[in-house]
Amino acid sequence: MIKRICIIGCGSIGSLYAAHLAKVAEVWAFVRRPEHAEGLNKSGLRVSGTHEFHANLRASHDPSKLPQFDFGIVSSKATQTADAVRPVAHLFKDGAILSAQNGLGGEEIIAELAKTFVMRGTTFMSGTRHSDTHVQYELDTATWMGPFEPTKTPFAMVQEAADLLCASGLKAVALEDARPAQWSKLIFNASVNAVSALTELPHSFHFAAEEEVGDLGHLLHALIDEGKQVAAGLGIELHEDPWEMNKIGAQTDHPPSMLYDVRHKLKTEVDFLGGAIAREALRAGIPAPLHTALYRLIKGKEAAWTYEGRKHTAVQRQT
Amino acid sequence: MIKRICIIGCGSIGSLYAAHLAKVAEVWAFVRRPEHAEGLNKSGLRVSGTHEFHANLRASHDPSKLPQFDFGIVSSKATQTADAVRPVAHLFKDGAILSAQNGLGGEEIIAELAKTFVMRGTTFMSGTRHSDTHVQYELDTATWMGPFEPTKTPFAMVQEAADLLCASGLKAVALEDARPAQWSKLIFNASVNAVSALTELPHSFHFAAEEEVGDLGHLLHALIDEGKQVAAGLGIELHEDPWEMNKIGAQTDHPPSMLYDVRHKLKTEVDFLGGAIAREALRAGIPAPLHTALYRLIKGKEAAWTYEGRKHTAVQRQT
Repeated sequence: MIKRICIIGCGSIGSLYAAHLAKVAEVWAFVRRPEHAEGLNKSGLRVSGTHEFHANLRASHDPSKLPQFDFGIVSSKATQTADAVRPVAHLFKDGAILSAQNGLGGEEIIAELAKTFVMRGTTFMSGTRHSDTHVQYELDTATWMGPFEPTKTPFAMVQEAADLLCASGLKAVALEDARPAQWSKLIFNASVNAVSALTELPHSFHFAAEEEVGDLGHLLHALIDEGKQVAAGLGIELHEDPWEMNKIGAQTDHPPSMLYDVRHKLKTEVDFLGGAIAREALRAGIPAPLHTALYRLIKGKEAAWTYEGRKHTAVQRQT
Repeated sequence: MIKRICIIGCGSIGSLYAAHLAKVAEVWAFVRRPEHAEGLNKSGLRVSGTHEFHANLRASHDPSKLPQFDFGIVSSKATQTADAVRPVAHLFKDGAILSAQNGLGGEEIIAELAKTFVMRGTTFMSGTRHSDTHVQYELDTATWMGPFEPTKTPFAMVQEAADLLCASGLKAVALEDARPAQWSKLIFNASVNAVSALTELPHSFHFAAEEEVGDLGHLLHALIDEGKQVAAGLGIELHEDPWEMNKIGAQTDHPPSMLYDVRHKLKTEVDFLGGAIAREALRAGIPAPLHTALYRLIKGKEAAWTYEGRKHTAVQRQT
């Protein structure tokens, strides 16, 4: 029976989980910054947008102040999974932890650290974080969740957690196999984020344009087809068509998270997105030249932020 | 007999041609900015670096002030070929014009406009332009030149022009078929420039690193191999191995021209580099998925500079 929940990482998605679940369970937020914990303890969380309410919860940046939990949700950036989970990994011995992160590979890191039941999660919720204590709820789409196969998480536990999320006012679906949902989002997300990071375009109409030879829609189509072939080669039948997801997203002009990262020169989640597709493809012996190429370009872009090299004059040169 | 020469476009390469040739012929520079012409008429050109000398020449931004020429060299950016050549296209009726630009496709534009003999040129010279009247000569490597096939340019004309370049102190080689040289540089240049434009790395050690799966050297290798396959499919045997050229360049940290363009949000030469490879491959029915992908990314990047789209709050979002 899930009574006490820890949200690990309180960005926009973590804040949405924390505020909603605080209505139906005892919720703690484990956060990195002391002032973030202080703000949450003092003011609680305001949700605006699709839902409008205020929730009280407890928060701490100090793992020694935290009790044992029945359930955890990891909603840090994928790149911060290990750092976020390690300090609290021992607090879920009798519970389970859901990864609600972008991409592929978070579950492995959580399972390795926490030695408890882990669940694969994929969420399409979206929100905008206005401050430590105010999050705007945008798309109220479901969290798809299922057992992480290696930890043999009982399906009944997944069902209970999904029911609790629904009781809290969010949408959630428990699935015997969550990989089709995870891979649908992975392929969509990896393709759109990589192209956005490299072009610095938001998710604009360009991503679905297929008229001229140089149009980006051709590239998105090829990336998505390649991702589908990798999924098929791994025996995964997709839950939704990522190309249809891309066509809808291309009408929004939303800035994908990797565009934010690139603009702020923050390490991107590419290792958990296109890099994960490239890795899985390599492991299974399936070609994935385009995802692999874009993965290498983004790693190169990250390297450029700190590379000094020999200085050259800033005037225009030939070659 | 070449007595009067027009240099069309006086960036670093054009300035190097103009100054050297002024020692052995009557040289005019056709430039876009009146103050550029004025500076050259008043002060001439100073060359420093590998060669050190001063040259006097004539310059104008006004085509009506220019006489007829025996020989022209187009050394504008490839993207500016049509605009640079159109106003003076009628001044070469009894002469020939050499394209000394980056990439592929400049010759077609020149031939279409000037209706005269055209030569394919590829130069590996490099220079840094310090001001309108001062250019630093760096690599004193050759200009490879040959007939542009459609205009049936006599080889004797190419040889005469190459001899004059050599007499002026530059290096030049006349070739019966200049395509192997042009394609060697095209493949090298298209690969290095595209990766540099997208990562914003200069031509650094990363471009030859092939240790980790994510290393950029793998991508450069794949781009170069793909380019070689396109050349082979077109029946062109390369003059030099572009991968060897890349390994040498990767020790220099030089910023390729497209990196300059991207940093200054100037339209790049991608249509004449990777875009030209993609076009030629498509025409010949040879697959070139990587050059095509990078071409589309760079077109997307250029589009991003002017795309307004719907405004979204600048705070961090999920997805």
